[in-house]
Amino acid sequence: MNLPIAITMGDAAGIGPEIIAKLYRDYAELAQGTFVAGDVHTMRRASALIAGTDGVVAQPVLQLHSGQEVMAGMGPGIAVLQIASGLGEVRPGLVDAQAGTFAGQCIVWAAQAALRGDIAALVTAPIHKEALHAAGEPFSRYPGHTEILQATAAAYLGRSAGEVPVRMMLANDELRVVLVSIHVSLREAIEAVTFDNVLQTLLITHAALQGVLGRVPRIAVAGLNPHAGEGGLFGREEIEIIAPAVAQARLQGCDVTGPIAPDTVFMRARGTPGARAAEFDAVVAMYHDQGLIPVKYLGVDKGVNVTLGLPLIRTSPDHGTAFDIAGQGRADPASLAEAVRVAKALLTS
Amino acid sequence: MNLPIAITMGDAAGIGPEIIAKLYRDYAELAQGTFVAGDVHTMRRASALIAGTDGVVAQPVLQLHSGQEVMAGMGPGIAVLQIASGLGEVRPGLVDAQAGTFAGQCIVWAAQAALRGDIAALVTAPIHKEALHAAGEPFSRYPGHTEILQATAAAYLGRSAGEVPVRMMLANDELRVVLVSIHVSLREAIEAVTFDNVLQTLLITHAALQGVLGRVPRIAVAGLNPHAGEGGLFGREEIEIIAPAVAQARLQGCDVTGPIAPDTVFMRARGTPGARAAEFDAVVAMYHDQGLIPVKYLGVDKGVNVTLGLPLIRTSPDHGTAFDIAGQGRADPASLAEAVRVAKALLTS
Repeated sequence: MNLPIAITMGDAAGIGPEIIAKLYRDYAELAQGTFVAGDVHTMRRASALIAGTDGVVAQPVLQLHSGQEVMAGMGPGIAVLQIASGLGEVRPGLVDAQAGTFAGQCIVWAAQAALRGDIAALVTAPIHKEALHAAGEPFSRYPGHTEILQATAAAYLGRSAGEVPVRMMLANDELRVVLVSIHVSLREAIEAVTFDNVLQTLLITHAALQGVLGRVPRIAVAGLNPHAGEGGLFGREEIEIIAPAVAQARLQGCDVTGPIAPDTVFMRARGTPGARAAEFDAVVAMYHDQGLIPVKYLGVDKGVNVTLGLPLIRTSPDHGTAFDIAGQGRADPASLAEAVRVAKALLTS
Repeated sequence: MNLPIAITMGDAAGIGPEIIAKLYRDYAELAQGTFVAGDVHTMRRASALIAGTDGVVAQPVLQLHSGQEVMAGMGPGIAVLQIASGLGEVRPGLVDAQAGTFAGQCIVWAAQAALRGDIAALVTAPIHKEALHAAGEPFSRYPGHTEILQATAAAYLGRSAGEVPVRMMLANDELRVVLVSIHVSLREAIEAVTFDNVLQTLLITHAALQGVLGRVPRIAVAGLNPHAGEGGLFGREEIEIIAPAVAQARLQGCDVTGPIAPDTVFMRARGTPGARAAEFDAVVAMYHDQGLIPVKYLGVDKGVNVTLGLPLIRTSPDHGTAFDIAGQGRADPASLAEAVRVAKALLTS
């Protein structure tokens, strides 16, 4: 790997800056080869915050001219590339349109850098969706990171967003889950369970995990309804939509099982290292909470979000901005560190 | 406790008979004071099946004249009270209308016995919903156990089913979850998220757990949509329905928190004995899989289903008929044993 990884700063009112500062302090080896795509002033404040809390001297914040500079090897400190013009004061824990705009600009910058081949991957610290909404055009169009990345990739490739289908994968040590839809209401999520969307999710999952695992991945598909519809008694989407999409994916070379009752499929796909072999390499879940509830059940500090389908590598911690504790220096950098670790692993697999 | 507990046999084509036979063999002390409301011939076959598999002499099946007989103390063997006329041969793993009818008759008999005060509680082995459907009237009206029990209780009390509201609670060592709706499609489950249904679920949960715990239970409420709607961006049910129901429940003395993002509420309510204190005593979940995915994620063998709101005590294992392994003697009786243990605990609390 001779290209750096950019860590986008996330919403300045959230815990992003402080967990990044802790990453550079507590995971210095892992942080080698990374830099922050963000705001120098905000990162200086975060560095002072965690020093103040933990009673040590604040780490220096080193302003880069280009991300490539970190590949020479960095001493102690937080390497920051200033994106856009400097961000003013942002109060922790409050929705701030300016912070939303800045967070969006960092993501677009990093996505474009990855598409151009200037960086190897991006790891994204959490953004706040209400702040993104408050930021106005173009960011208010996007419910979250994934849609910004998709639109940026589509523009770069000269395609429509629909021609660059993406899916979110959530992974921890025990389980990988890929979602048919993400940040929409549950009503809209049911409408998104179409033959095309389910098939596309299966094909994206197959291609991405084949790359990572080096073999045909064993994919399980959850049903939409309780007991996967119980033979049509509690809904017919399994019969009319999901099973036909599974059949088509098999014809295209995928190893797919299902639809399986949603309340048992995750247990079957759960593998504990050294103790319990998983029946499947990943579960395709029909909606956001179906997949995220099991991934997060055992605790969020080890979960990682990987965007599949894009011509770039992107991972992120699977927690949010945690406005309730932002600015206190208490936030845990473990999931962010795991996201950096997974990004590096994907680059070498 | 001077009344027996009835264990309904469940669908004869499923694993019910064989896990009951294993319960009497492997958990003999726990099985004291219980009897099977079922079919003598089917239980004899199950006893022979598990003996054949494990290479030991089959336990005797003792036909009772009344359930009360077991309170004198029983020696080795499976105590069975014959319900209805004898059931013919049933092939394991196949939907059979006759087995569905018989399973339904056992449940109705046991519910009526509990309502009359002839038995202390019922523990129900799994039924197959397609077999119940195939059984025709009246059983085809009911999606599952809970609705049969509700209708039987309502008839006994001279009320309509709507006047005897019930809710399903799923519990394991770490988590208790109460569901707003159960065996309906996800589309119908969304429609069932009404002010009245959410409030009723909160009040039933409060009353039932106050009885069990001897103090005001701390109840968490999950949202319906991802991130609990993210302030209205991904659905408005949290704002328009759930939050007002929570406010009303608080006015009526409940300790309720929420709506909380569905993908984090279960983690917060999870308590591991001796290690991790739970923030809440129970989570009210908006639909079947939202609640059952986390309860089952760590494995089904310790999960128990408790029906709240009825004037009787009923528990059940949280797995199904497992037609894929029925008739092989491989099924695990652990969850059934846990259901008996929880029923006994509820009787003494």
